[in-house]
Amino acid sequence: MYYIGLDIGGTNLKSGVVDEWGNILGEASVPTGAERPQREVFQDILLSAERAVYNAGVSMKDIEAIGMGSPGKIDYETGTVIYNNNLGWKNFHIADLINDALHVPAVLENDADAAALGEVVAGSARGAKSAIIVTLGTGVGVGIVFNDKIYRSSEFGHMVIRSGGRECTCGRKGCWEAYCSATGLIRSTREAGITEADGTVNGKTVFDAADKGNATAQRVIDEYTSDLSCGIVNLINGLQPEVISLGGGIAKQGERLLEPLREKVYAEMYKGLTPPRIVSCTLGYKAGLIGAAMAAKQ
Amino acid sequence: MYYIGLDIGGTNLKSGVVDEWGNILGEASVPTGAERPQREVFQDILLSAERAVYNAGVSMKDIEAIGMGSPGKIDYETGTVIYNNNLGWKNFHIADLINDALHVPAVLENDADAAALGEVVAGSARGAKSAIIVTLGTGVGVGIVFNDKIYRSSEFGHMVIRSGGRECTCGRKGCWEAYCSATGLIRSTREAGITEADGTVNGKTVFDAADKGNATAQRVIDEYTSDLSCGIVNLINGLQPEVISLGGGIAKQGERLLEPLREKVYAEMYKGLTPPRIVSCTLGYKAGLIGAAMAAKQ
Repeated sequence: MYYIGLDIGGTNLKSGVVDEWGNILGEASVPTGAERPQREVFQDILLSAERAVYNAGVSMKDIEAIGMGSPGKIDYETGTVIYNNNLGWKNFHIADLINDALHVPAVLENDADAAALGEVVAGSARGAKSAIIVTLGTGVGVGIVFNDKIYRSSEFGHMVIRSGGRECTCGRKGCWEAYCSATGLIRSTREAGITEADGTVNGKTVFDAADKGNATAQRVIDEYTSDLSCGIVNLINGLQPEVISLGGGIAKQGERLLEPLREKVYAEMYKGLTPPRIVSCTLGYKAGLIGAAMAAKQ
Repeated sequence: MYYIGLDIGGTNLKSGVVDEWGNILGEASVPTGAERPQREVFQDILLSAERAVYNAGVSMKDIEAIGMGSPGKIDYETGTVIYNNNLGWKNFHIADLINDALHVPAVLENDADAAALGEVVAGSARGAKSAIIVTLGTGVGVGIVFNDKIYRSSEFGHMVIRSGGRECTCGRKGCWEAYCSATGLIRSTREAGITEADGTVNGKTVFDAADKGNATAQRVIDEYTSDLSCGIVNLINGLQPEVISLGGGIAKQGERLLEPLREKVYAEMYKGLTPPRIVSCTLGYKAGLIGAAMAAKQ
């Protein structure tokens, strides 16, 4: 049997037909048009799913269940989007409506959690009994998967590592996210007086500057990897995962980030614990489709 | 059927016969005599168990399984104490030996984890689907129990909350434990120039001084509850437990500690999460016996 994994993004509604081992057999993507009425977006979610089924060369009768990844606040029991900021949805009973329309059971997961499960089933943490996926994007997302089960909606990005430090969007001071998100790194880059030629700063700016021999840029990177290591060691000491996978924009630096990070983490973690593998996520957006489908399978 | 819960402490070998609901039917305690050969201590572990069975008015035939709580490093699969500092044990296959001697299956758990399970089964966190037991003693112990299962050997006490702060016994700087253990509070008390009349400091000294109107002492307590809140909020944001229970020496302050703590935690935790109950542990040493027995039941 097959499963549909759906990612309800602010830009695109992506779907994939996934087999029970986490292979994608066919995909489809439809623009979200987030400004449109809920009813129209919902129709295009159905369209996206149907196209993926068509592209996979199967029929809706072959689909055992549908899993949807959504940002925002979710009621897992009822498959309801309580609140989705990007789409302006409130109390939208999407799982029931999908079920009614396609006659296939539907479940709802947090999109970041679904992506974490995808990386464990078919990506960077494949086969791990316990894995933590850390996404370095606008925020620091933390997805925890134990025994192929998602530990839902962890907000470990809002773990204070520097008490009394930088103000965070959550109201606390010194959260991991305030230092280690792309937003945090951009702030550190700007504070160090490093910019692109046109005065802008992005998540790559400081790495490019360090490449050109800028010692201040290298110092910003060193501090960034130390803060990243601090939060990761906290999670390792507390939860002892087999694998830590890094995703999101900053993780594109690959070994350049991972090599100093591993050195710091392994030196600092609690003695006697087994050092986890520390790697990059490998599936990109497909992690969300595969993970949502596998959540539906469960 | 009944279960034996055993606590292999550095001072006493405590045993309890426990029913399937977590009630203790009979207890016994034998001095550990930690300096003695392993063989002699082991004989007294058997003696302690047998006396508890006698005191419970049952017979060894009624015992379904034995659970033992031990400090130190444990191999859970084989029921082996890899290393126990207090008793000088190395690679001691205690579960097999208990099984051979009493013809009852035996399992080994970390003693703090067993106590956490005890509080969930029969104490302060009774009925909670998810609970975190924070023990404020020599260190900061963190026991995590989800769905009546122990999440083993968490070392969240070694979570850095003040990057670059106080040196911790683990080699990191700024661990939660360095500030919030009894040892940490005693250090803060001493640094603030507050002592008992005879120049000594204990975990109660600062509270007694504040009672007498010492403003510096009150400031030390305020900082302590802020640091305690910081670590607890980190755990709530990441793991969303239903209950947080405080145990250990400092927790004896009861509402005096809990009231300001709740205020700080509830103000700072991630918006939208359900506030957990924050309470004191209620079972004392019995938590370890009940939890070890319930681990054996599982």
